[in-house]
Amino acid sequence: MNADLVRKTKRTTTVRKHERGAYDRDTVYSIIDSTPLCHVSYIIDNWPHVTPTIQWREDNRIFWHGSSASRFLRQITDKPACLAVTQFDGIVLARSASHHSANYRSVMLFGTAEALSGKDKDRALESFMESMFPSRWGQLRPMTETESKSTAVLSMAIDEGSAKIRTGHSVDEEDDYALSIWAGVIPIIQKVGVPEPDPKNLPGVPIPEHVSEFKLGHP
Amino acid sequence: MNADLVRKTKRTTTVRKHERGAYDRDTVYSIIDSTPLCHVSYIIDNWPHVTPTIQWREDNRIFWHGSSASRFLRQITDKPACLAVTQFDGIVLARSASHHSANYRSVMLFGTAEALSGKDKDRALESFMESMFPSRWGQLRPMTETESKSTAVLSMAIDEGSAKIRTGHSVDEEDDYALSIWAGVIPIIQKVGVPEPDPKNLPGVPIPEHVSEFKLGHP
Repeated sequence: MNADLVRKTKRTTTVRKHERGAYDRDTVYSIIDSTPLCHVSYIIDNWPHVTPTIQWREDNRIFWHGSSASRFLRQITDKPACLAVTQFDGIVLARSASHHSANYRSVMLFGTAEALSGKDKDRALESFMESMFPSRWGQLRPMTETESKSTAVLSMAIDEGSAKIRTGHSVDEEDDYALSIWAGVIPIIQKVGVPEPDPKNLPGVPIPEHVSEFKLGHP
Repeated sequence: MNADLVRKTKRTTTVRKHERGAYDRDTVYSIIDSTPLCHVSYIIDNWPHVTPTIQWREDNRIFWHGSSASRFLRQITDKPACLAVTQFDGIVLARSASHHSANYRSVMLFGTAEALSGKDKDRALESFMESMFPSRWGQLRPMTETESKSTAVLSMAIDEGSAKIRTGHSVDEEDDYALSIWAGVIPIIQKVGVPEPDPKNLPGVPIPEHVSEFKLGHP
């Protein structure tokens, strides 16, 4: 995040106070890598839009994809975008209403959405699959040219943004600790369930290790 | 959603194809009520921004809150906003790369963010607490005037937007069902963990039922 400290500071101070800011690159990467879901925000016809989609990271870039026919993806290419990755970790109960809070890890990134094309695009899609399900790409029916053409991949440099993290219990007013009120944290956990095989699988097809050992977040 | 069908259709078709659309009000409400996390998108200085926050619903309005000092909340008051509530339910593995997908429930709402004030604001905060933790509000140290002043509450009518839901297994090309490839769904589950009492709780303070029986989503 060093390259754009001024732009970063200017823009993200518009959003929230900074006491929970944690800006080092490793922290940002670890939050991005912890879950594939993100929310991308963009402007169409002077209106803000936000849409959930699946993201993946390679080095210092973040990627997402969708249908080439989607007006969303066509309209935001080469336009300003803001992308959030959020892990909601818990609800923090305090001794007064105002000090209730949430535990979370979040990253907000600003940048310009660039479209990939040709071999760069195909390679990015393969890399996406392999990062989530190692060795799956080579086992699949190969992608056709039509399928490749109908898929748009966008990417953004991870150069401007911020990470915010809140953990732990409430921070109450000093006097309030004397009150007989239960305070604490209710953890919220995102977990992987038991894989459900498609009933249309051929008989005897084994469950691959990239499914049985699947974990959220990069290995 | 009936009041604004034209605006709704016009704006949300810019975002995604509609085959997964599910527009009835009960569906929209049930997704909003299923998790407190939302992402609010807005425009500041011609840049899109998206920030995660906690939302709650009352009848046909959605609410969120934060610090009155936050430039974010001040800047978006009476301005266009877009709000997304998303449940990421699973990863869908198919027999070709292109048919991999995600199972999810999501709502995208468009509207103007209106600030509440005075008694309306305090009542909304109480209602928020009570909807999440029944009977907690009356047990807390009462909110001071300063605390009330330092809290901003925004709300938006649920009049324009869309819900999208994807469930089930992949829909593959007919020929691909003959391939010996494992397809299926890896469920992603958001669950409530075991409540962690604050070590600074007074000895013997019992865990309230609104904590021990806490569930995500409205009762």
